[in-house]
Parts: sequence; structure tokens; C-alpha cells
Amino acid sequence: MPSVHPFDSAKDYEIRLATKLVKDSHKASDNVHFVQVDRCDPPKKDMIKYLDVERHGGEFPRIPRVFYCYYYTNTLTFNKALVNVTAGHLITKTELPEGVVGPFMAEDMAEWEEHCLAHPAVKAEVEKLQLPKDCSVITDPWIYATDDPKEKRPLLQFFMYIQANNGHPESNHYSLPLKFSPVFEAYTKKFIRIDFLPSGFDGTVTPTLPWKRAKPAEYHPDLTNEPLRDVKPLLVNQPEGPSFTMEGSKVKWLSWEFRVATTAREGFVLYDGWFKGRQVFYRISLSEMTVPYADPRPPFHRKQAFDLGDAGFGVTGNSLKLGCDCLGVIKYLDGMFTGGNGEPSVMPSTVCMHEQDDGILYKHMNYRTKAAVVARRREFVVQTIATVANYEYALNFKFVNDGSIDLEVRATGILSTMPIDDNMTVPWGTVVAENCMAAYHQHILSFRIDPAVDGHKNSVCYDDAVKMPRDKLNQWGNGFVTERTFVEKAGSVKQSPFTNRAYKVINENVKNPISMDNVGYKIEMPARQMIISEPDTYNVTRAKFATEQLWVTKYGDNQLFAAGEFTNQSQTDTGIAVWANGTDNVRNDDCVIWPTLSFTHIPRVEDFPVMPVEIHNIHMTPFNFFDKNPGMDLPQANNNFNKSSLAKVGLEENKACCKSTL
Amino acid sequence: MPSVHPFDSAKDYEIRLATKLVKDSHKASDNVHFVQVDRCDPPKKDMIKYLDVERHGGEFPRIPRVFYCYYYTNTLTFNKALVNVTAGHLITKTELPEGVVGPFMAEDMAEWEEHCLAHPAVKAEVEKLQLPKDCSVITDPWIYATDDPKEKRPLLQFFMYIQANNGHPESNHYSLPLKFSPVFEAYTKKFIRIDFLPSGFDGTVTPTLPWKRAKPAEYHPDLTNEPLRDVKPLLVNQPEGPSFTMEGSKVKWLSWEFRVATTAREGFVLYDGWFKGRQVFYRISLSEMTVPYADPRPPFHRKQAFDLGDAGFGVTGNSLKLGCDCLGVIKYLDGMFTGGNGEPSVMPSTVCMHEQDDGILYKHMNYRTKAAVVARRREFVVQTIATVANYEYALNFKFVNDGSIDLEVRATGILSTMPIDDNMTVPWGTVVAENCMAAYHQHILSFRIDPAVDGHKNSVCYDDAVKMPRDKLNQWGNGFVTERTFVEKAGSVKQSPFTNRAYKVINENVKNPISMDNVGYKIEMPARQMIISEPDTYNVTRAKFATEQLWVTKYGDNQLFAAGEFTNQSQTDTGIAVWANGTDNVRNDDCVIWPTLSFTHIPRVEDFPVMPVEIHNIHMTPFNFFDKNPGMDLPQANNNFNKSSLAKVGLEENKACCKSTL
Repeated sequence: MPSVHPFDSAKDYEIRLATKLVKDSHKASDNVHFVQVDRCDPPKKDMIKYLDVERHGGEFPRIPRVFYCYYYTNTLTFNKALVNVTAGHLITKTELPEGVVGPFMAEDMAEWEEHCLAHPAVKAEVEKLQLPKDCSVITDPWIYATDDPKEKRPLLQFFMYIQANNGHPESNHYSLPLKFSPVFEAYTKKFIRIDFLPSGFDGTVTPTLPWKRAKPAEYHPDLTNEPLRDVKPLLVNQPEGPSFTMEGSKVKWLSWEFRVATTAREGFVLYDGWFKGRQVFYRISLSEMTVPYADPRPPFHRKQAFDLGDAGFGVTGNSLKLGCDCLGVIKYLDGMFTGGNGEPSVMPSTVCMHEQDDGILYKHMNYRTKAAVVARRREFVVQTIATVANYEYALNFKFVNDGSIDLEVRATGILSTMPIDDNMTVPWGTVVAENCMAAYHQHILSFRIDPAVDGHKNSVCYDDAVKMPRDKLNQWGNGFVTERTFVEKAGSVKQSPFTNRAYKVINENVKNPISMDNVGYKIEMPARQMIISEPDTYNVTRAKFATEQLWVTKYGDNQLFAAGEFTNQSQTDTGIAVWANGTDNVRNDDCVIWPTLSFTHIPRVEDFPVMPVEIHNIHMTPFNFFDKNPGMDLPQANNNFNKSSLAKVGLEENKACCKSTL
Repeated sequence: MPSVHPFDSAKDYEIRLATKLVKDSHKASDNVHFVQVDRCDPPKKDMIKYLDVERHGGEFPRIPRVFYCYYYTNTLTFNKALVNVTAGHLITKTELPEGVVGPFMAEDMAEWEEHCLAHPAVKAEVEKLQLPKDCSVITDPWIYATDDPKEKRPLLQFFMYIQANNGHPESNHYSLPLKFSPVFEAYTKKFIRIDFLPSGFDGTVTPTLPWKRAKPAEYHPDLTNEPLRDVKPLLVNQPEGPSFTMEGSKVKWLSWEFRVATTAREGFVLYDGWFKGRQVFYRISLSEMTVPYADPRPPFHRKQAFDLGDAGFGVTGNSLKLGCDCLGVIKYLDGMFTGGNGEPSVMPSTVCMHEQDDGILYKHMNYRTKAAVVARRREFVVQTIATVANYEYALNFKFVNDGSIDLEVRATGILSTMPIDDNMTVPWGTVVAENCMAAYHQHILSFRIDPAVDGHKNSVCYDDAVKMPRDKLNQWGNGFVTERTFVEKAGSVKQSPFTNRAYKVINENVKNPISMDNVGYKIEMPARQMIISEPDTYNVTRAKFATEQLWVTKYGDNQLFAAGEFTNQSQTDTGIAVWANGTDNVRNDDCVIWPTLSFTHIPRVEDFPVMPVEIHNIHMTPFNFFDKNPGMDLPQANNNFNKSSLAKVGLEENKACCKSTL
């Protein structure tokens, strides 16, 4: 086996070589400035051969490691290069058309922040605030998004806030939004203008006035000064070690095996998943997320983030901490980050993996004998948490010991806030603190599931539960059946919760010997409101995936990102909008499924200053895939094994009564 | 404080007194035979006073403990008595009209089973099977349900199965269903007839023929002989004890306090819930569940169970075992069961309570300083598991440390099966084992939430997220707002997932000082298919609650059960169908909310022989109730506290490569 597996994460020496080859191909005066570098996915045709050799022996095909490099030259020219780091040569390098904007990188953002605050026009505006001594000004650069087909410059919208509490670095500036917002050009750092922000019931803006003090809503323990609740420790340990092993990128846990790689854009990706020796998927990842806001007042109408395409879940990944982000016996994986100069650095522990218990998996008690069988639901969690400025997203992909997979996202962090006048409410937002409003918005995530249910030729279908006609057979009117519809061509499927519509990926070439039906996996998620914006808005034209809950496309190499490769200030969706073309055959073919997980977030006061997680899930469940409950080989739950104990919590009630009446 | 709290579970001495008073009021020759006895809920008007005295002092109102007794006299006369056990006198006793059938009791069912198998008509039929020596016949009595307005007798439908494996008591007879089904009258044990069961694509039945051997699908470890998966222990312990206390029926856990009582019908009930000193609910329970089946072929058309009304979740509650049903540090509560003779017996440990960790509750990392705040989501679980013949249901009511409550049901156990011919499939069921079909069905649960959001005068409303008109203010087309509609009169609310319809219970008399909106709790659940049966079917007329996802009624004492007090062979719904009358005011009033949790179960082969849990939830979340995230007073997660550890799972990848190439 070659020493680097084609699915492995990028290695530092590979990044170093890729960026060196790119720099070497340019003049020093081009000022090559990298913004994202990572390995590409290997071509699937070759990988299928490779994986077959892994399982059945033979000679491995040679699959070179190819890296993509996004970088700027001459300050404003955006380029993409592909580099073969196995052979050590540059494959192509392309200057991207004007108007294509690459993802923004944290180190650049930090520099631009500083520049913004130091700019005379901004300082002049800050001056007008006549700030008290204990307050200063801080700014968060935001993606500018799109409202003008002629706009080609990479722009930034700087939201300005008060940093109270004598500049305590953890003071919550998001709770003190200001009413002006400078716009700069990225990279050139050219000042464009200052937008003034409305703070009433319409778009009216006012010139900057002296700041009227409002109380910050603090979240940091240094600043909240709240008495803490008395919580007793709850410890999870595994004295015999966990039930998984990891070798290279390969994880084996109970009957599951798969590979995991960290990536710059997606956070992590899972590959080549098998359960009980049966192939289930080729690749699973989060593909894109868009967050459009409901506030119609310019410039808020432009607020639409693409968290993966505009920034990247990997490069904004948190270094997860033992006993904080992850409880139990934890294995960490590192991410990799490439600086503007092309130098890679390790992002420690951006992914954690561990087991957890989730209650009973199954139980039956024989009422005659009182004998019970019961097994516990054990999950294996692969988690990453990304911080995209104010917001946090935790991705938890959970493998379950019954052969199911749960793709979970938890939204937390700090709401994006706007200024609001005294005693004012608006119908598109919630006042969450003094003079601080959080606009309604949607989080619309596209997951990409490249299935391999007993092989790569799969079909997507959906089953509706429908009444039987009232005829001789169904004279009592209780009959219902399921009706199956196949997705024949690349496109989308309408939601239909009231017919219990269930999406399935099946293999039409393999029958379940028991049910005599095709083997498959069910893909389940609650019916949801999709993107609310009008169809002709940039919100929609940039993110067509957000209009339907389920998309099916024919597999194509490099078709990984639902809204297309470049989303920053994009005008159109170059992803699903193109690939779901209505003509490609997807039935009994190598198809890809893109479930959309949408949630309309109407902020609550309780979501501030830091939001308790909102949890949303997609379930993948074997459906007539196995010949019985695949958890029947789990050891029966028992307390010799689980060592639980009785709680000593009771004052006996009578004693307590006596006490209180003495 | 009186020594028994009005919300406490029934005590054995109370049951003994109640049944004695009933028996004393009858002649011995009446043959009083109890089928269910429990305490009634105290009148709410009195209880509100009582709870007020508990909090603010004063003199407790005297609230007698009143018990209901369901019992038969003279074999077939069904009676209900109310007994004041505090004063020790019978309040009323009523002979119920012919056709009202009480819940069936396990000890009676056992006797009827024996009787059925010993009956000559049944034995004659069994004879025809010419069973091999290692097989015998076993029967499960099933509720008969309803298809005839003239039918007044309490009936039982006995489903017959083969017990293979030489009569091993844990052999899975459900996997070997037979094609005939005796019907008997309950109590008199009178033989009525034998129904023959169809096993093909229509209602055709055949006389009993010699049994064609099929292989049982076993689930018991003694019989499965499968090699077990190697699962390492995962231990949960709390060296400093759990974070809750219990005094009488009162539980205090972190900022939550409430009472819990076990009941015969509901399993358990929660009362008087407060979070951070704010009142949230008066009473929460599961109210009813109906399970209609899709198979149109008689006699299967009648299959419709009401698991609470026909049997009872308390009296079918499992004795939960440490380290099996419950992991961690566990407090158990006992249930109470009343025998036919009126003698109470303790059902040990039918309810367990414990804490569990559920990942991160909130996180924010300041990208400038890398400082992070993170708290863990801790849940307090109240669990019961009921076995209703073949099926198991686990109820998990979870209190969360962010002020939310999660009402979770897990369906597991064994599917109800029907015989099916060789190589046959049917469109209303799945073949799950040899000659064994599991029909499609629905589980439709009604929960009863009696809210008390800052007091008892509450309103139910729903908010829809809707596009703003495309006007000057919303010229970019991204604007959306929420529109609120109030439920004015007792009735139901239509589902509307595509407008993000969010149900809320609010207090119109209390404003949130931050949002300037009314305080409230959101009640969330996924949009679902409700009952599929035609509106004129008994399935629907008996369970009107199953037609809509959310009902609102005005509070009335003794209005606890969604389909009415007596469901066994009922013809109409005497619950919500009556109380949701379109006339009672429910706005800013003492209202009750009945969310319906419906799931259409299309069985998978993987659901057999024992079904991995299907998990369904209703979330109750504070919505502009608090003035900020109520979890901000939680201690920050850290590993001094949580003592997690690094997994040692890796062969280093290079080493592994070396090994494999040597």
C-alpha cells in the first residue's frame, strides 16, 4: 500500500511542495498570496479500482496526489493552480475571470480589521461618537455578498461595535452594534464608502451622533459575575479503552469501517463506509451552507453568507479541548492551514472522535416470563466545530450500532446583531438586548451523500403512504399502501410530509432475500421551509440548492459544492443549478444525493448573548438492506458490564415531613 | 404540610381502603373484580391554592385523596366507583352502559390465554396443523376493536403462533403466525367463533392445513447463537453524586423543580414544573396512543390499539434494571398494580431518573483571542418502558439545563405479524421473515400539556414566517416577517411546515422586558402525516385527536385522555372530539395543549425480530421567556471537572505501513 492513502488529509510537506511549485512558476514581483490550499479528491474511477484492490488484492493503481491552490497575484488577480505533488509538477494554472472572488482568510481579515479602524474616514466617524473612556470601537469584517451585477471588486462590509468594559478582550461587542458600516476593497484595502445603518422601522438612516450608552450583554465568566449553578461531575470513562481503532485515516468501530480526512473547506469528509462487510457510501460531507437574512433595509438586504465557500469550515475549525468540546475517551485529528506565504501550519485537534451511549437500542420483554432482551444504542461521533466570526456550528456525524448514520448540526455562538432605537420593535427581528436587534434569518445547509449501497450503481426513489381506494378489498376504509416513484433524471424532489414521503437510495440490482424488495438506505429529515426570498433575488440565484429539500445528480469528479466552487460575491449558483440539469440519467447509475437541511431562525431573547444549540439532523437508516436487525449481535446490556449505580438522593419523605413540622 | 402530597402516586394502603369500600358496598355474590384502580387528579382550583401556600405560606386547603375503581360485577357488568380515601367513604358508584368496556388486565389475559388454548374448538383446529414434536401453539390475546355498532360484548381476538425450538419459552412465536384466530368473550370466556386469516394478496382464507415448517426468527441470545460484537464498556459515574434531590414526589435538579408520580394509565405524570423560580407547567403526560393498521383484509381491518385506554402504560410498565435500561447514577420509582381482588402490589422500578450529557450546550470562541466559552448540555431524564404485548414503548421526558423540555418516545419491541404465503408480497406490509408479514401501521400519540407559563392564564398562538410584499421597503425581495395567529376557541391548528409554523403558549399578561413581546414557550415537532384512514372509519371516529397535530381545549377537571376515558371497543371519541368544541374560550384562559406525535411505520426487515428504536420528539423551548440565555450561569466545561482522556487507538500510520510491507 502506498504510504499516503489517496483519501488521507493533506500533509504539510505536500502543501509546502504545492505552494513552492506555484511560487516558482511566478515572478517574485507577482506577489503570490495564497488564500486556500488543499488536496483534491482523487478521480472516482481510479479510486474504485484502488478500493477494490484494498479489499481483494492485486496491484494498486497509481493515483497521484493533486492539490488545488487558490491565490492572488498582483494584489487583485485571483488564480487557481492544480499541482501534482506526487510527481512534483504544476498541472495547470488559471487566472480566474474578474468578479470571481476567492474565500477570505483569517490572517487577511485581521489585517483588514486593523486597517479599517486606522483609516481616517472611519476614525472621523468614531470621533463623532464621543465615546466614554471605558469604551472603544471594534469591527468585524463581513462578506459583502451581492446586489449589483456590475460589481466585480472583492469587497468587505465592516460592522462596527462598541467594546465596553475598559477594552476587556472578551467583552461582547456584538451586543453594542453601531449605526455605520465602512466598505473597503479587499487586498487593496481601498476605502469605498461608509454605509449608514437603519435602526428604526424603515430604511431611514441618520448621521453619526454621540453614542448613547447601552449595557453590554456579557457572556464571559470574567464579566457576567453570576453565581454558578451547582452541577455535579458526570464522568464518562472506558477502562478497557474505546471500541475503535485508527490506522492512518482508517477507522474501525464495531461493525463500521470508514476513512476520515480533514479538509480546508468542509471541515472533515468521510469516505468508503462499510457496515458488516457491506458497502454503504463512497463519500459523505457537508457541502455548503447559506445564511440569508430577512431584514429588507439596505445594506442588510445583502446579508447572505456562504460559510463553506466564503470562508471554509476546516480553516475556521476550533482546536477542540478534552472535557470541554468532547466528553469521554477521545481521539483527535488535526487540520491544516496554509498561510498567505504558502507555509502550512497544523491546526491542532479540529476533529474529535469518541463513543457515546444513547439510551436503549432495542428492548423486548416477554410478558409471560418477564425475560427481557435489551441492548444499548452506542454511537461513534465525528465532530468538528467551526467559528465563522460570530456564529459557531458543530457538525456531529454519528455512526450508530444499528447500521444507521445521523448527520447532525448544532448551531450556536452569537447572533449577528443590528442597532435598534429605544422602544422599537421590528417585524423581521427580535430585540435581544438594549438597542440590539437580531434579524430573522435562515440556515440552509446542503449535505452531499455519494452513496454506494452494495456498489456504485444506485437509484433514488421516494415512497408515499397513500390511502387505498374504497373498494371491495378495502371496504372498511383503513387500507393504505406505499407508492414508489423513481428519480430518473438529475433534479430535485418535492417535499410531501403529509404522505409520509420517504426518500431512499436503493440498489436495483440487489434484492433483499427476506422482503424480496431492493436493498436500500432511507434518508430522513423533517419537512421544512426552504429559502423564503423571492426567486429572482440574488439570495436564490446564488443558492439554488436552497429551494428544494432533496437533489439528485449524476456523479461527476470535482462536483462537491452545492452552490459551486466560488461563492464569495457570486451572482449565480454554478453547482447544483448546473448539475441538476434534468437530462443526466441518475437511475441505476452513479448518483449523488444532496439533502438540504433548512431551518428558519426566529431569534429568541434566550439565544443571546450566546445561543443554546439548535439541533438538526438527517438520518440514514438501512431499509431492507440487512436480513434482520443488524444489532442482534450486540451483547445484552447488563450491570456487570455497565457498572451503573443507585442514586442516593432521597430524604425519605416521612423524615422530611417530620423535619419540616418540628 | 400533609403527609401525602395531593400529587403523590397512589399508596398501597389507599388502594386497599378504596377497594375495600367498594367491595363492602356490594354483596359477595356480585363477585367484584377490579381491573384498574388509581388516584384521581385533584381538582385544579384547589390545587392552585395548595401550590400557592407551598410557595408563599398560609393554610393548606384540605384536598381529599380520591380514587377511581374500575371493576366488573356479576362477570359482565362494568362499574366505576369514586372513593374518598382521606375521609374513608365511597363517593359514587356507577354501572356503566352496556358496550362500555374497561381496560383489560394482565392477570385476566393470562387466564383467557390458557382458556383459549384449552378450548375444544381451538384444539380441534390445532390438531389439523399436525405439528412436529418440537413445535407447539401459543396465543396472544389482542384487543378486538370495533367494526359493528351493534356489538356490545367485551371481546378478544386471539392471534395464534407456533412456539418452535422445543417450547423454549423465549422462542419468538411472533415470527411464526398461524392462519386462524379464535374470538372469545372476555370474562365469560364464551367461545364466539374462529376467524380465518388471509395470507395472500386479497381476503381469501383457507381452512387449516398441516403446518408448513418455517424458520423462526429468534432474538433471545440463547437461541440466536450469533458471535457477539466486541464492545468495550462505557461507564458513566458521578463520584460526587448526582445533581438532583428527591423529597417525596418533589424533584429538584439544577434550576428545575417538579413533581413526578407513577400512574396506572399514563406510566408517569409530571406536575408543577418551575425553572429558575418561574412557573412553566401544571401537568405534563402522555395522554393516549392509537395504533391503526393498514391491512384492509378482515379481520385485520379491526386492528387498532389504544395502548393507554385499552391497557395502560403504568400497569404494563417494565421493572427497569440498572445498567440495562438506565445508565449512570439512577433513582428508581415504583409503580402500583391492583389485582382483580383489589389487593395492591408494588411494581418495582417502573420509572428511572438520571442525568446524562448531550454534547455542547453552547459555545463561542472569540476569533481574535481564541478564548472560548463552552458549557455542556446536561439532561435529566424521567423514563418508563411499557410492554404492550409484542411492542415496547420507552417514554423519556427530558429536562434540559437551558430551560427546555424534550418529550421523547422510542418505539421498539416486536412487530405485530401476520401469516403470508410463499413468495408473496403485499403492498400494505413488509415480509420480515419466512411466511411472516408485518403490516404498515401508524403510531399516533397524544401528549397533554397543561401549561402554566408565568401563571395559569395562557394563550396558544402560532407564528408563520411569510415573505414581505415586494414594495419600497422590501425592494430586494429578501424580507420576511412572522405573522401571529391566536387560537381563540377550543379546537385544532393545521400544520404548515412550509411557513415554518411555530406553536407557542404565551402569557399575554406578562411582557419580556428585552423583546417587549409576551413571554412564552415554543412547542415544536416535525410536520407529519396524521391518521390515514377514511374520516368515516372507526379508526377515526374513535380517535379524532389523530386527525390534527395540535389541539387546544379549555381546562376541565378529569379531561385527561385524548380519546376519552373508555377506549376499549369504543365507537366514538369521548375526549378531544367533545372538548374541542369550537365554543369554549381558550385565549388568555386556563387552556390545555394536546400535541399529536404521529409516525407512519413502514416496517423494514431490520425492524425484526426486535426493532431498533424509532425516536420521535416534541420540544418545549422557552421563547422570549427569560431575559437572556438561561444557561449563562452554568460552570464552564473543563477537564479538571470532566476528566476525559485521550484514546490510545492508533497504530501510527507509518509503523503500520512498515509492518505491512516487511
